[in-house]
Amino acid sequence: MTTRREKALFEAGIKLGALYHQFVGAPISLQTRTTMERAIEESISLQPFVHNIAVRVDESKIAEDLNAFGYCELAGDMLAVELTVDVEGEVVRVAMSVDESGYPLMRVLE
Amino acid sequence: MTTRREKALFEAGIKLGALYHQFVGAPISLQTRTTMERAIEESISLQPFVHNIAVRVDESKIAEDLNAFGYCELAGDMLAVELTVDVEGEVVRVAMSVDESGYPLMRVLE
Amino acid sequence: MTTRREKALFEAGIKLGALYHQFVGAPISLQTRTTMERAIEESISLQPFVHNIAVRVDESKIAEDLNAFGYCELAGDMLAVELTVDVEGEVVRVAMSVDESGYPLMRVLE
Amino acid sequence: MTTRREKALFEAGIKLGALYHQFVGAPISLQTRTTMERAIEESISLQPFVHNIAVRVDESKIAEDLNAFGYCELAGDMLAVELTVDVEGEVVRVAMSVDESGYPLMRVLE
Repeated sequence: MTTRREKALFEAGIKLGALYHQFVGAPISLQTRTTMERAIEESISLQPFVHNIAVRVDESKIAEDLNAFGYCELAGDMLAVELTVDVEGEVVRVAMSVDESGYPLMRVLE
Repeated sequence: MTTRREKALFEAGIKLGALYHQFVGAPISLQTRTTMERAIEESISLQPFVHNIAVRVDESKIAEDLNAFGYCELAGDMLAVELTVDVEGEVVRVAMSVDESGYPLMRVLE
Repeated sequence: MTTRREKALFEAGIKLGALYHQFVGAPISLQTRTTMERAIEESISLQPFVHNIAVRVDESKIAEDLNAFGYCELAGDMLAVELTVDVEGEVVRVAMSVDESGYPLMRVLE
Repeated sequence: MTTRREKALFEAGIKLGALYHQFVGAPISLQTRTTMERAIEESISLQPFVHNIAVRVDESKIAEDLNAFGYCELAGDMLAVELTVDVEGEVVRVAMSVDESGYPLMRVLE
């Protein structure tokens, strides 16, 4: 049998995977960063069981990646996400952020 | 040789194809529609040669497609886009909107 | 503390969300269906902890959705996925398929 | 009035933009490269007016980008695409490949 916590973590994983592969690749700049953060938060918030989500795109990483045209693409290593999922009162918190090697790690917060 | 108008239409096509395949599939609702429209406009505006862009997502189509959780996915047949591209002073206007069969048609505006 | 089974279900969710939002929207036809199924399987198999994955795109749904140009876009309601994830010997099975209302439901298989 | 060559270049742009934003971000490795190349070619070939397409993903760039899990994400700077579009007998050739700065440039081939 699957517990509510197991179900909640399954659902939380779905949201992080969805967010990443839906929005990575979108053109972004320092000027458009906050609108994109809001759009991602609002979009993923619509999915079932999402209780809360905070999305931050790292300004210094955007600045580093800017091309000759003054923008870059949203990349996994720019994203910091915290997400709370609630399945029948069982609340779990998960996050995505780069680890020391630069890999965008998704993990369960205790 | 490629004229400025040919180059501008090539660039305009790139933007419409990019917009469509980057954002179609994103969760959307009547409440989050305007943030998503702004995010798409701001994002595509960053690409080279874009002079102006207007993105509208059809509210009635969103309402039709809502699932049991109160949202749907951004689909091609919800999108109306007008885009102006400027290559060295040669300005072209293109659009995407559904034709009578429901196909999201991209076309050059004269 | 997070158990291995909880971790495995979190990871399984990530893969289903990723698969869906990476590949939905891609042009597909009855002739290109099997190559796309293989490409999705091989791509998602690369992600950490994936033990096995089977992806099927419903031929009858493709046939229903074909546009005047003889193709359609890969949509969630065409996808049937079974995925096995292994976290330190704890193996979980999850699936995605449409429920009776046509919603592409992701669920844990017991 | 729009000429057939202008229309063909508009259509060619659409396909390059679509290809890029549909498939960039997909997990890829040296072992799955050729299946992904075929899947992209077959998928984009379905779109209207495509006469021919060749997609190559740079093996050395994949090798450079591999993470600790032995894969990476398909990125624009790995892609070399040549595409022929035919609008009522007017045939145009376009390409995408990285320029000297590493930007994935889309251009018209004469």
